[in-house]
Amino acid sequence: MGKIITLTTDFGLKDPYQGAMKGAILSINPDASIIDITHLISPGSIVEGAYILLEAYGFFPKGTIHVGVVDPGVGGERKPVLIETERYSFVGPDNGLFSLIAEKEKVKRVVHITSREYFLKDVSNTFHGRDIFGPVAAHLSLGAAPSAFGEEIKKARAIEFQKPAWKNGLLEGAVIYVDSFGNLITNIKKEDIPENADLIVGIKGHIIKGLKKTYSSAEAGSLMALIGGSNHLEIAVNAGAASKLLNAAAGERVTVRVLER
Amino acid sequence: MGKIITLTTDFGLKDPYQGAMKGAILSINPDASIIDITHLISPGSIVEGAYILLEAYGFFPKGTIHVGVVDPGVGGERKPVLIETERYSFVGPDNGLFSLIAEKEKVKRVVHITSREYFLKDVSNTFHGRDIFGPVAAHLSLGAAPSAFGEEIKKARAIEFQKPAWKNGLLEGAVIYVDSFGNLITNIKKEDIPENADLIVGIKGHIIKGLKKTYSSAEAGSLMALIGGSNHLEIAVNAGAASKLLNAAAGERVTVRVLER
Amino acid sequence: MGKIITLTTDFGLKDPYQGAMKGAILSINPDASIIDITHLISPGSIVEGAYILLEAYGFFPKGTIHVGVVDPGVGGERKPVLIETERYSFVGPDNGLFSLIAEKEKVKRVVHITSREYFLKDVSNTFHGRDIFGPVAAHLSLGAAPSAFGEEIKKARAIEFQKPAWKNGLLEGAVIYVDSFGNLITNIKKEDIPENADLIVGIKGHIIKGLKKTYSSAEAGSLMALIGGSNHLEIAVNAGAASKLLNAAAGERVTVRVLER
Repeated sequence: MGKIITLTTDFGLKDPYQGAMKGAILSINPDASIIDITHLISPGSIVEGAYILLEAYGFFPKGTIHVGVVDPGVGGERKPVLIETERYSFVGPDNGLFSLIAEKEKVKRVVHITSREYFLKDVSNTFHGRDIFGPVAAHLSLGAAPSAFGEEIKKARAIEFQKPAWKNGLLEGAVIYVDSFGNLITNIKKEDIPENADLIVGIKGHIIKGLKKTYSSAEAGSLMALIGGSNHLEIAVNAGAASKLLNAAAGERVTVRVLER
Repeated sequence: MGKIITLTTDFGLKDPYQGAMKGAILSINPDASIIDITHLISPGSIVEGAYILLEAYGFFPKGTIHVGVVDPGVGGERKPVLIETERYSFVGPDNGLFSLIAEKEKVKRVVHITSREYFLKDVSNTFHGRDIFGPVAAHLSLGAAPSAFGEEIKKARAIEFQKPAWKNGLLEGAVIYVDSFGNLITNIKKEDIPENADLIVGIKGHIIKGLKKTYSSAEAGSLMALIGGSNHLEIAVNAGAASKLLNAAAGERVTVRVLER
Repeated sequence: MGKIITLTTDFGLKDPYQGAMKGAILSINPDASIIDITHLISPGSIVEGAYILLEAYGFFPKGTIHVGVVDPGVGGERKPVLIETERYSFVGPDNGLFSLIAEKEKVKRVVHITSREYFLKDVSNTFHGRDIFGPVAAHLSLGAAPSAFGEEIKKARAIEFQKPAWKNGLLEGAVIYVDSFGNLITNIKKEDIPENADLIVGIKGHIIKGLKKTYSSAEAGSLMALIGGSNHLEIAVNAGAASKLLNAAAGERVTVRVLER
């Protein structure tokens, strides 16, 4: 079995970029098993990349190497990094893309990647996915030690993600991602809400009573709130798209009020 | 060689869902060879999923496990099923997604999947692709017996697909799928039409005489009818999109009249 | 390790076509390692396919088989071909799709594919990717000799690509591709421009002074010119899309003037 290398980028699926990056990996380790998480991150959106990586990475087997390349600062001052955790390795630009993971995983070390012998021979200033990150992941998959890639640094760069907060008995959160079904995924997690409580969820002046268990347990076309597959509170519509019904996007305010019994 | 597992879903290619599902499969069987048929089924469209699966599944080698997840009723009453045929296994919700295949393949048994030891430890109510169907396919690929997953049931759920019918010497059919080239694929098959007959195909008031052999044998920009790669009658435009020229979508009526000689 | 077969097509990612093609390949060689370069070439655009193949193919390991299917003339007079170069094999229609590669690689032989024993049993007139090109690549990956597929022919068909030209001290080129970031990639290459010269790049009445090194070294929202990852001159916008700012598409005229010092 070849080692698994996953890719999460904003390269798109038409341009030659993701293909070239896979070629660069396979030229170093032809046995690597490359799995696409996605190449459709909105161009340059580190926050979106961080969210999608967070929701997918943990289902892969121990030892998987996750490469993330959403890199608007490519060729500039941000560092290429390798983050080694108890279960995985992460390779990409040090711009916050791995922030959410660093909070969840036990980080063993963070390496500032500088050893050019692991890069493609000619490194461009604009395409480090192909020239640095892919090749580093490939060498890592062949057994190179993390310490071989450069000096250890203290920690990876973190970016702040908005967290839900209680104000006057109201939990205030926000939509952090709209999926392809039009489900509005919020930053409010299952554990932020008292279990078995009577709830009222509010969004854009709409009031939603209680949580449903499944998408199909609400009437077709009507708004519902439920805990989705990633344990986040979601606003959804059975057989429809909540994003369209509410004309809502990432950033929209969402509230939860717990009713007294 | 790892066993081949194909995926046909409406998860989209941006969201973390298909990546998480692949991770779940590879965590159980890291040697599985996962092939995407598509993740771009229109959200919740069982009919579209059934059609695309039908056109692709039979080209895979014997022993391939086909996972289909278009599952608007996820977490509700519809059963998770495993369908074993002479050549393949199919895993997914019992909602008609495998209807068209069941008509073509020799079905050996249908199992209602209930054995939780083959699921992820925490099963959500909203994401059975990751928590049940992927893991079941992975265990199946490792050699688990179909009977181990649950009780046998009589048959998988079938949904009715419109079939073409003769009325007053006219074969009446319909467009069932519009492909990315804008070709209008109908439910009229090669064997529904007398061979070597002179035909007139009708759609939206347009009359098309005879069948062409290839897309390039009609004048550029003009309508043609031909038997496509899946043996269905198609309406196409050389160097253009029939769907745009005719403003036609799935459901559009198509007729065939056989001329007397 | 299975042999690597890459795919570059205009089949799209929703239709059953690319899945069926992969099934046909794996039915012949279940160990083949299939990598998508892209399936999103604009329908029938040989020029776009040629460009994307050109930018990706060379990063794959020696021995890789590259299949390209952008084939508006499928079933007509254009020949199926196998092009063997020093490092790779290319399989697809002889319509110019491999033109740009033939200029860069050392071509050893070009074979007109005619041996039906390497095709699927039933060959349609409309889907040679699945019925001919995929299967031929699979047999090639199993070790079949190039000469077994048919007679050698003199050369593959070339199509003319516009090249930049000097006129009155001005280098005149054109945008040849717009990527998903909105970067305008031109046919002017690094080696067409004197090194370390002071340059003025012109497009649609805009004047851009000098070349930047990285996307982030220009002010956010402002136009810049730089040499991109494929050594082509690009027009880009930091944190924006040049294609939108300039309302420019492939074909747009781009000029470079070298300033006297």
